[in-house]
Parts: sequence; C-alpha cells; structure tokens
Amino acid sequence: MSKLAQFTKEQSPHIEDVMVRFITQQTSDTRLAESILYSIHAGGKRVRPLLLVATVAAFDKPVDLPVYQCAAALEMVHTYSLIHDDLPAMDDDDLRRGKPTNHTVYGEAMAILAGDGLLTAAFQLLAMAELAADQKILLLQQLSQAAGTKGMVAGQAADVQGENQALTLEELMGIHARKTGELIRFAVVAGGVLANQSEAVLVELDQFAQHIGLAFQIRDDVLDVISTTEELGKVVHRDDALAKSTYPALLGLEGAKAALTDELTKARQILAHLSTYGQFDATVLAAFIEEFEVKENQ
Amino acid sequence: MSKLAQFTKEQSPHIEDVMVRFITQQTSDTRLAESILYSIHAGGKRVRPLLLVATVAAFDKPVDLPVYQCAAALEMVHTYSLIHDDLPAMDDDDLRRGKPTNHTVYGEAMAILAGDGLLTAAFQLLAMAELAADQKILLLQQLSQAAGTKGMVAGQAADVQGENQALTLEELMGIHARKTGELIRFAVVAGGVLANQSEAVLVELDQFAQHIGLAFQIRDDVLDVISTTEELGKVVHRDDALAKSTYPALLGLEGAKAALTDELTKARQILAHLSTYGQFDATVLAAFIEEFEVKENQ
Repeated sequence: MSKLAQFTKEQSPHIEDVMVRFITQQTSDTRLAESILYSIHAGGKRVRPLLLVATVAAFDKPVDLPVYQCAAALEMVHTYSLIHDDLPAMDDDDLRRGKPTNHTVYGEAMAILAGDGLLTAAFQLLAMAELAADQKILLLQQLSQAAGTKGMVAGQAADVQGENQALTLEELMGIHARKTGELIRFAVVAGGVLANQSEAVLVELDQFAQHIGLAFQIRDDVLDVISTTEELGKVVHRDDALAKSTYPALLGLEGAKAALTDELTKARQILAHLSTYGQFDATVLAAFIEEFEVKENQ
Repeated sequence: MSKLAQFTKEQSPHIEDVMVRFITQQTSDTRLAESILYSIHAGGKRVRPLLLVATVAAFDKPVDLPVYQCAAALEMVHTYSLIHDDLPAMDDDDLRRGKPTNHTVYGEAMAILAGDGLLTAAFQLLAMAELAADQKILLLQQLSQAAGTKGMVAGQAADVQGENQALTLEELMGIHARKTGELIRFAVVAGGVLANQSEAVLVELDQFAQHIGLAFQIRDDVLDVISTTEELGKVVHRDDALAKSTYPALLGLEGAKAALTDELTKARQILAHLSTYGQFDATVLAAFIEEFEVKENQ
C-alpha cells in the first residue's frame, strides 16, 4: 500500500466520523439528514481534509479532535458545493463518483436544502470546535473567504458564465483558482495555523497549495480526455459536451501534461525549502504530489 | 409617522449600507454581485435586523458598527433563504415584494449561487465584525444554529415535505418555529448578547421572540386570506394553491385572529416584566407588537 493510501485509510474514518456525528446530532428533519448523509457517504478521496491533516502532522503536531473538526468543516463545504454543482440548473449531472447525484435520489428541493444545510453546518461545526478563540475566528474568516464571493462561489459564477464561451488561459486559470484553488489553499494554510506556524511559513504553505491546486485541476482536465467513463465513475467528456474551455483544449494534451509537471516541480521545491526549517516531515505531503502526477498508463 | 416607521426610516439605511458595502468589496464576479445586490435592494421590511437593533437600543446601549454588522449578517441569511425559497424547484415564485424574483432576472444557476454567496458572506461578515472574540463566537454559534439543520433549513425541509399533506396544528407550529421562528429568536437574543445582558434576561428575550415569531407567521397566514395581490405585492392564495396547511385553515379565520392576539398579549407581558429591571425602554419593541396586529380594515 502506498504511503498516501495508508495515510488515507488511517485518517479518513476520523474525518467522516466527525461529519456524520455532527449532522446526525444537529439535524431535526429525518429526510434532510438522510439527504445530507447520502452525499457525505458518497465519499470521494477527501483530498482537502486529508491535506489539512497532513499539514498539521508534517509539523509534528498532534492530530486531535479540533483538527478533525476543522477538516470535517472543510469537507462539508466541498460536499455542499458538489450537491449544488450537480443540480439541473447548474451542471445537470446524474452521476457523481459512480452513484446517482443527490437531487436524482432526493429531488431538487431537498438537494438545494441539503447543500444549504451542509454549508451552514460547516460554519456551525467550526464555531463550536474546541479551539482557542483567536485561532477559531481566524479559521472562520479564512474558510468563509475561501468558500465565498471572492472564492469558490465566485469561481462557480464565472464558470457558469464561461460555458459555451472560448476562454483565454488566464481566464480559465482565474476561474479554477477560485472554484477549486481557494479551498485547497485553505486546507494547507489552516493546517499551518492549527500547527501554530509563523506568518513566513504560512506564506510558503500558501504557495505550495496554489501549485498543487492548479496541478489538481490540470490533472482533472487531462484525465477527462484520456480516461474512460468506467474508470472515473462519472460521465467523461462532459466538459467537452458543455463546450467548456480546458487546459488540454488550450495547451494541447502534451502542453497540459507539461504544465502539470511544472506545477508539481514547484510544489516539490517549496516542500524542500520548508524542510530546511527542521521539525518538518514532508513525506505525506510529497505523496500527494506523487498522486497528482499523470502516469503513462493512465 | 408611527414610532416604528420612524425607527425603520432611521435605522434601515445603516443596515443596508453595511450589506451593500460588504458585498461590493467582497465579491469578485460582476454578475454575481449584481444578482446578490438585486435581492438586497429588493428590500422588504427588515423586520429581523430592526428587531436586533431595537433590542440593543432598548437596553440603552450604543448602536454602533458591530451591531449593524451583526444585523446585516442576519438580514443576509434571511435574504439568501428567500432567493432559494423562490426557485422553481421550491415555491416557484415569479414575484417577491412586487418585483421579479432573483432567478427570473438572473437565471436559476446564478440565483442558486447568489444564495450560496449571501449565506457564506453572512458568516464572513460576522467573523470579521469588530466584536470581542467570545461574543463573536457565541453569535456565530447562535446564527449558524438558527439558520441551520435544526433551524431554518430544517423548517424548509419539513415545509417542502408537508406540501399537499394535511398537517396538524402541532406539526404546522413545529415547521414555523424552525422556518421563521429561529431567525427571529436570534434577532432578539443577539440584541441582548450585544447589550451584555444576563442569562436570565436572555431567556426572557427568547420567550418574547418566540411569541412574536409565532404571531408573525399567524399574521402572514391571516393576511394571505384577507388581502389582495395588489396590497401584498405578491401572488396571494399561493399557500392555498399549494394545498399547504395554514392557521386559518386549521383554526378558522376568527380562531387564527384570536391565536394571534394571544401571542401578542404574552409578548407584551414579557416586555412589561423586562421593564421592571430598569434601564429598559420597551417603546420600539412594543411598536413591533402593534405592527403585528391585524387591524379591522385589513
């Protein structure tokens, strides 16, 4: 088992446990709870919360309940965004990770409410987390900014408007930086905050996160071109069907692969620099970089 | 001009100013900002934030920027809920306060995102407000609980499921307590928190808020029966059209009016008791009770 697979197997249950317990305890409508838990259980790779936990652990800090609460809040924001993103008025997806999407199972009205409920619960969980007051407020500010109208929601809005339009590379990167990049930045920087790191270290973590966030998106576009529906568990070439601009469309497949390699190289360089401070074990974060590579057989 | 009209005229611009400035400064997509500001400008009576401000003022505490920030955050949560509530998959309303609803103007996808953005921005504004850390965390916990999966969103979910079903009075009250009651409770209790009141006073404020919250909903149902479309600026008898249970349907029109009077009487009694503590001017809060009465000519 790879280092990352082992880390995922160890850590994911803790993150999922916090999400499931919180929603179960804090939801007073049975069907609403079912709908939310359906999307939580639908799973996925938990990249964002695992990055948060891995960053805390890299600084040799204890991964305790407040860390999992923060990681769970982040994954809840991500999960709400997928539910709303899949709605007929948005991307109109019937499948997500090989399973029927939330609105397909529970109806559109309940899916909208499940998303609203998850987003609200994410801030509630973080506001109730067992953290020092100042740290908690900083994380609430950062998460709401990352998820909000300069962050993820703004990226979604730009994405919706960009459909059926030819975007420049710069426009495409601007959309992705907000739509997926901001939550990945939050994951890594929040890990640094929870590990009580200095402003200088937080800046480096932020740069690292920006490189892997971009890599993550380029990889997604590249895989979308070269994979089959079966492997990904979702309908492939949808982006193409919606006439969305993608990295392979703008750079060519080889150009996109080269851009991906470039981002991952820069991410590795930052990890190497962080390691010079001592008390920093880059192993797991480096395993994420490995994971983001597109292998020849893919 | 009535006491409440004067208070509204004085205070609403401050609340609206905080909302507009925050969204303008914190939104990076032009169309998204337009869509959000459209619903903010669509107005309404600002009952919730005005109740918050009135409660702070009743205790003779200064109504300063942090109070308006908290009031604005509350109104942003309410505004997001209206945008999502009006969506085709939910109540499918084309008009709200006599104006086309958000999705009618900006499309469903942008309306969903405007709601998501407003909800996120509400927590962001409160997290960035100029409040003491402990007070801010308490208010964030209370607002997220009131708006969340045991509060407003749960009420909406129950409401969606209650459509086309005959509800008992108890079920109807349970839905309203969550769907509209929780944010009204937050308004009044948050006012007490911002005015640094004791736990005992907060409990009385909470009871006061529960009575006027219920009155607010009964009044809405009663007006829905006896008003015309023109007066309300929305399509009347929709609840009837959706076969929803209402107070007049369950209690008869006169029974509903009596229940309304009963709630307002209890609310007045609590204000009278709060006034015995001294340093409490009930004038404006009493004016809200007046406003909630259904006059004979209505």
